[in-house]
Amino acid sequence: MNFLWLPHRAAAERVDELLSRSGLRIERIVSWGQVSPAGFWYDQAEGEWVLVLAGAARLRFEDETDARSLGPGDWLDIAPHRRHRVDWTDPAVPTVWLAVYYR
Amino acid sequence: MNFLWLPHRAAAERVDELLSRSGLRIERIVSWGQVSPAGFWYDQAEGEWVLVLAGAARLRFEDETDARSLGPGDWLDIAPHRRHRVDWTDPAVPTVWLAVYYR
Repeated sequence: MNFLWLPHRAAAERVDELLSRSGLRIERIVSWGQVSPAGFWYDQAEGEWVLVLAGAARLRFEDETDARSLGPGDWLDIAPHRRHRVDWTDPAVPTVWLAVYYR
Repeated sequence: MNFLWLPHRAAAERVDELLSRSGLRIERIVSWGQVSPAGFWYDQAEGEWVLVLAGAARLRFEDETDARSLGPGDWLDIAPHRRHRVDWTDPAVPTVWLAVYYR
């Protein structure tokens, strides 16, 4: 699969695993307006480095007041067990994420 | 640094380290026509997952006859110690790579 190939809009996010190795997983995620469920926080044993390549999103850490706005080229590293959620993704265009999960 | 920010053309490739963790390193590499030195092969102890996001390149494995042409969205995984080299990158435009080195 070419990384830049885009699926049709769907009700759910689309997740494609690009690499899986011991202690490492690389995924491409495409959102079309999806957000984390109300009140839900990701709390992952793995670290996650995430890069937005297209679209727009707001990611919130539980330990911060304001959500972080992410657009093309923005990336951040999420430490293991740092609770976070996706407050918003642009419903008008696909938001393309590259996520590297590591231990 | 925004991932999509581009440096001016330079004599050497530009490498920016985006993440460094135990057994994991993520780099952004920008080539402007640079290639591996004649006769040189990379022979790395680490695995390398690499994604081309812009530009064009030809990557050759020693164990294959033909170079692989890579363009935007193409990615591949290079096993540890699989000898390879960059035969060509487009001299006219920047070639932007995301490289994930892992153990």
